Amino acid sequence: MRYTIFGESHGPAIGVVLQGVPSGLALDLEEIAFQLARRAPGKNALSTPRREADAPEILSGYFEGRTTGTPLAAVIRNTDTRSRDYAATRALARPGHADYPAHIRYGGFEDYRGGGHFSGRLTAPLVFAGSVARQVLAARGVTVGAHIRSVGAVSEPSFAAWGEPLSPALLRAVEERDFPTLSEERGSAMQEEILAARSERDSVGGAIECAVLGLAPGIGSPDLGENVEGILSRHLFAIPGVKAVGFGEGFGFAALRGSEANDALYMRGGAVTSPTNHSGGVNGGITNGLPLLFSVAMRPTASIAREQDTVNMDTWTDAKLTITGRHDPCIVHRAVPVVEAAAALAVCELLGI
Amino acid sequence: MRYTIFGESHGPAIGVVLQGVPSGLALDLEEIAFQLARRAPGKNALSTPRREADAPEILSGYFEGRTTGTPLAAVIRNTDTRSRDYAATRALARPGHADYPAHIRYGGFEDYRGGGHFSGRLTAPLVFAGSVARQVLAARGVTVGAHIRSVGAVSEPSFAAWGEPLSPALLRAVEERDFPTLSEERGSAMQEEILAARSERDSVGGAIECAVLGLAPGIGSPDLGENVEGILSRHLFAIPGVKAVGFGEGFGFAALRGSEANDALYMRGGAVTSPTNHSGGVNGGITNGLPLLFSVAMRPTASIAREQDTVNMDTWTDAKLTITGRHDPCIVHRAVPVVEAAAALAVCELLGI
Amino acid sequence: MRYTIFGESHGPAIGVVLQGVPSGLALDLEEIAFQLARRAPGKNALSTPRREADAPEILSGYFEGRTTGTPLAAVIRNTDTRSRDYAATRALARPGHADYPAHIRYGGFEDYRGGGHFSGRLTAPLVFAGSVARQVLAARGVTVGAHIRSVGAVSEPSFAAWGEPLSPALLRAVEERDFPTLSEERGSAMQEEILAARSERDSVGGAIECAVLGLAPGIGSPDLGENVEGILSRHLFAIPGVKAVGFGEGFGFAALRGSEANDALYMRGGAVTSPTNHSGGVNGGITNGLPLLFSVAMRPTASIAREQDTVNMDTWTDAKLTITGRHDPCIVHRAVPVVEAAAALAVCELLGI
Amino acid sequence: MRYTIFGESHGPAIGVVLQGVPSGLALDLEEIAFQLARRAPGKNALSTPRREADAPEILSGYFEGRTTGTPLAAVIRNTDTRSRDYAATRALARPGHADYPAHIRYGGFEDYRGGGHFSGRLTAPLVFAGSVARQVLAARGVTVGAHIRSVGAVSEPSFAAWGEPLSPALLRAVEERDFPTLSEERGSAMQEEILAARSERDSVGGAIECAVLGLAPGIGSPDLGENVEGILSRHLFAIPGVKAVGFGEGFGFAALRGSEANDALYMRGGAVTSPTNHSGGVNGGITNGLPLLFSVAMRPTASIAREQDTVNMDTWTDAKLTITGRHDPCIVHRAVPVVEAAAALAVCELLGI
Repeated sequence: MRYTIFGESHGPAIGVVLQGVPSGLALDLEEIAFQLARRAPGKNALSTPRREADAPEILSGYFEGRTTGTPLAAVIRNTDTRSRDYAATRALARPGHADYPAHIRYGGFEDYRGGGHFSGRLTAPLVFAGSVARQVLAARGVTVGAHIRSVGAVSEPSFAAWGEPLSPALLRAVEERDFPTLSEERGSAMQEEILAARSERDSVGGAIECAVLGLAPGIGSPDLGENVEGILSRHLFAIPGVKAVGFGEGFGFAALRGSEANDALYMRGGAVTSPTNHSGGVNGGITNGLPLLFSVAMRPTASIAREQDTVNMDTWTDAKLTITGRHDPCIVHRAVPVVEAAAALAVCELLGI
Repeated sequence: MRYTIFGESHGPAIGVVLQGVPSGLALDLEEIAFQLARRAPGKNALSTPRREADAPEILSGYFEGRTTGTPLAAVIRNTDTRSRDYAATRALARPGHADYPAHIRYGGFEDYRGGGHFSGRLTAPLVFAGSVARQVLAARGVTVGAHIRSVGAVSEPSFAAWGEPLSPALLRAVEERDFPTLSEERGSAMQEEILAARSERDSVGGAIECAVLGLAPGIGSPDLGENVEGILSRHLFAIPGVKAVGFGEGFGFAALRGSEANDALYMRGGAVTSPTNHSGGVNGGITNGLPLLFSVAMRPTASIAREQDTVNMDTWTDAKLTITGRHDPCIVHRAVPVVEAAAALAVCELLGI
Repeated sequence: MRYTIFGESHGPAIGVVLQGVPSGLALDLEEIAFQLARRAPGKNALSTPRREADAPEILSGYFEGRTTGTPLAAVIRNTDTRSRDYAATRALARPGHADYPAHIRYGGFEDYRGGGHFSGRLTAPLVFAGSVARQVLAARGVTVGAHIRSVGAVSEPSFAAWGEPLSPALLRAVEERDFPTLSEERGSAMQEEILAARSERDSVGGAIECAVLGLAPGIGSPDLGENVEGILSRHLFAIPGVKAVGFGEGFGFAALRGSEANDALYMRGGAVTSPTNHSGGVNGGITNGLPLLFSVAMRPTASIAREQDTVNMDTWTDAKLTITGRHDPCIVHRAVPVVEAAAALAVCELLGI
Repeated sequence: MRYTIFGESHGPAIGVVLQGVPSGLALDLEEIAFQLARRAPGKNALSTPRREADAPEILSGYFEGRTTGTPLAAVIRNTDTRSRDYAATRALARPGHADYPAHIRYGGFEDYRGGGHFSGRLTAPLVFAGSVARQVLAARGVTVGAHIRSVGAVSEPSFAAWGEPLSPALLRAVEERDFPTLSEERGSAMQEEILAARSERDSVGGAIECAVLGLAPGIGSPDLGENVEGILSRHLFAIPGVKAVGFGEGFGFAALRGSEANDALYMRGGAVTSPTNHSGGVNGGITNGLPLLFSVAMRPTASIAREQDTVNMDTWTDAKLTITGRHDPCIVHRAVPVVEAAAALAVCELLGI
């Protein structure tokens, strides 16, 4: 399965083409709508008030309720666009955004409205594609699920440190929460962190931890383009705002001794397993049968309401910018289904689906 | 430029084929030897005593002192192999290594001696290829250089926090050190950390920070397979032992506010620049003209001299393993030229070279 | 530039996503409509009477009249679908069509109506993409153009044997003909051949010769995936009905002596050239500066009105099939813009656009 | 399985790296040597007298007699090189060869000796890789085999027209002939054609027909990069000298009516089959269970002993060239195992091996 996402925030539509979908899959359209709703803005004060129906129209690859195996294309029309928010400040590169690099890259021909092709809105077709991928994986016993690991200074335990064993049921329970944390108390504290940033006309970053359950050992290879970490990270870094990816202990490995980092192996019920999972389910680029565990860091939303120093790309002079319009003080909670989607698509690639 | 690495630690040879090398490049073979020597083991108590000449033979793509533009193949013969170290414990999966996943992946047909295809020795042809890539980049004004950011509990300042401005000269000065840190005092403390781990029959991890200077703004794209972070991380995670990759503030972004994370923009000398570089030189997957900055975490060497619990892959029973043979208590310092090599190859891909 | 085509003949829409389009190109939408009209059916007795507006809607990658450089998506709605023509004979594999292999490949879940994803209708988005590619190439001085070389037993001279020199003007003159041949007299004879086949409730095949003018020498490589012939043929064989591809003399080379096949070289006006072009503008997988010349063979339309022996894929028993519905007695003339489109997309790949 | 070939005719060595080889395959090294011997020159007056041991050394991916599943690298040393044959005429572009396009492509830095990277000698590692691929396919019941269809004006029957049914045994019988034709009488006539060309200081082209037996129906897709014809042709056009590829009737389709071209389908022994195989085993880019049949045209050897008009690439003036050295008057018979090798590698790609 390979996907191609297209569209701009304020263009006619955004969408995705998904190639290599197995034929005969009875798509659960309600589940797709559920996943899109998890990502959708406009639900509360934690997000931008922009509201989009986000109702995908499937144009191809789907016949009589099942996938055909030919390319599956879906489009989502853009409706609630307020382009006038952007025209006035078109020439002012928003700090932290891609405005300046995009201006150079595309020669000034990029659609600047609402971030254009760089908009977080483009993650809607990614979630669509990921939801299809998750249904493909579910049929093979593979489950993907994530939780918010931290927002600003507030964190919650990792999957490994949480009291309950990692299971599809636990992942689904988190998934169904409006604010997907393991600990509801920690989740409330994170939401307060977001509201505090918002009240200070600021934004805040965070981290997401994701698990993939049900992967057999022996998948992947140490080689370039074939190793688990490389495939996953290639997909994860295509999510706007992701700036770091770590597997298992991730950057924590730097401070560990080998005796702390190695996962001892034991036979349990005829299978090789380990009471620890420091390596995050992968050694030498190959799955080891333990849950695949990784974390990503999301940068704080670049759009903040404070005045910022920047440059004018028409006159190439220094300028002051105060961003108006509708923006998320934090995208971490909305990014959870996006990380799950990218992970599911990556795992399909890994499995040769 | 695309590379394919082949070989096993104790097979006849290891090597690399590099496709797409520009023609007419007068290869600096001494520089290649220098880079290979930086990676080579056996220099002191910080590394395995295995000694290899690591003298590459160029088989193709090189004629009358210059690259031809056709595939460049180089092989390095394996000479100092002591395979008997491994035969006795062949069936015992070394914790933290890929033995068990590889056994499943390759059906038990993998060359187990010295880690086989998973050996850190395979990074020698990677350094060869990377050194060619660095020479290609040098001709375009692009410089790659790294330093050890931390070993265990000992760290040194980042490039951003270091007193001197980031420049090719600074990078080269670090490169020429036996133990490549910015601060020699901090470097000494790191070496003590390594020797302490060694004396406790343990190993230790660390982190490496890398910079790429001279990249124009506007390179890359937000899309899957085209964004800077995805391309870099795909190459970096192909290095054995790399478990995390972060750009700019990396995982630090999770704790930041937008007002702290955004890089304000100013016109200086006719160019867009910023006094800070939190984003690591990339926004929306596209270079912004500031130095490309990223860090990787290296896990501690999995081979430690202590007894470990594991499984016997012949009998599928629990077992005890004490690893003998020659091993590095830390691979971080030897990994510095490897990270630079992978980064250079990634940047060539990014530049469409 | 890479393209992904999606859609089924009787689904909601067909379309294409084109990645890597250079930014800032002022698309000539009339030219796109002209190319789509050349391919469109329903014009006369030579083609199926199915009529489609074939009006593409551009969904992304296009802003204020120019390409943005981000993925360009276009969809064409299906309107004149008469699916009842197909339901009755759904289980009967049409000889010469992909019905049986597709049934196995897609497990019976394929959209069978009107050939589904295998329909020649899918060449409309290919022509759209190709027309964009031709405009990109035109800006670089590269022109693509083709003529019908033969229909059944009737042929016309090759470009090499035609009296006029090969030029963009000649190619455009042919392009503007309803029936694109060099010789109008030969074209009339070919049309009679088509009508004869039609009157006998049969169909007829043919060959198309294509030229690409303006390519510099030195493009390509002998290596797999990089050679001119391999790149062109990969694109050309993705056209439904293409069963053979030859460069220069093509299969004629088999009967030639070296002294007949070699193109002697001369300096003319400071450039290397040759009075002959047996090799079709490519030696060793690399362009030589002469026009790139190749031919493709199109099989006769598989849908014929005669009764045919086949199998029933529900009962897996022998059956008789008489195809009704609307079909082309020949697709060669409609395939000319499709071959040009595929060639233009291939040349963009070759040029690294 | 993906392969990368490297080397120059008169460099230290030529070789190949084969990635994705299934692990545990007990390589039949004698069979590999047999295939290399079929391709090897120097056997008789039909070929160049250059003699090479062509003994491949396997450097990696092979352990205790079996493939490991990691990259398999093999090198063949160049020994019988007479580079002085080439130095004198280095600046003179040999007509029909890639000298001039390569000179532009590689900026004059290409290794010109003996055709360098363009040499037919590079087909030795291709045959090595293909022989491995054929052994992989044999384990899956898939057989590849070819015969010379024509040399100059002399042809022999196609597989379809030959009296014996197409079977692995027939293919192997042809394979074991020094001059691989179905008809020994026709083979003798072809050899006379070659000797006639040689005696006239000329060369001659030919055609090769190849069959792949044992492919299940339902493999491939109509889409770009996934269709049978596109995958096969991409591999076949990477063979030096191949200038045309056709499937089933190939260019013959152009002259056929649909009623002649369609293969009627029947149930026989519970399977769908056809008494004819005009389509060459593929419809809509997907295998149909009949033998995969295709033909390639090989151009006449470009090196001929006659004086030819050409250009001097140092002075860019007209020149006369008389090629000396050792050359094949015909490469068609030596190309048979090369076509089989490329086909086997293509079929592995098609099967996702």
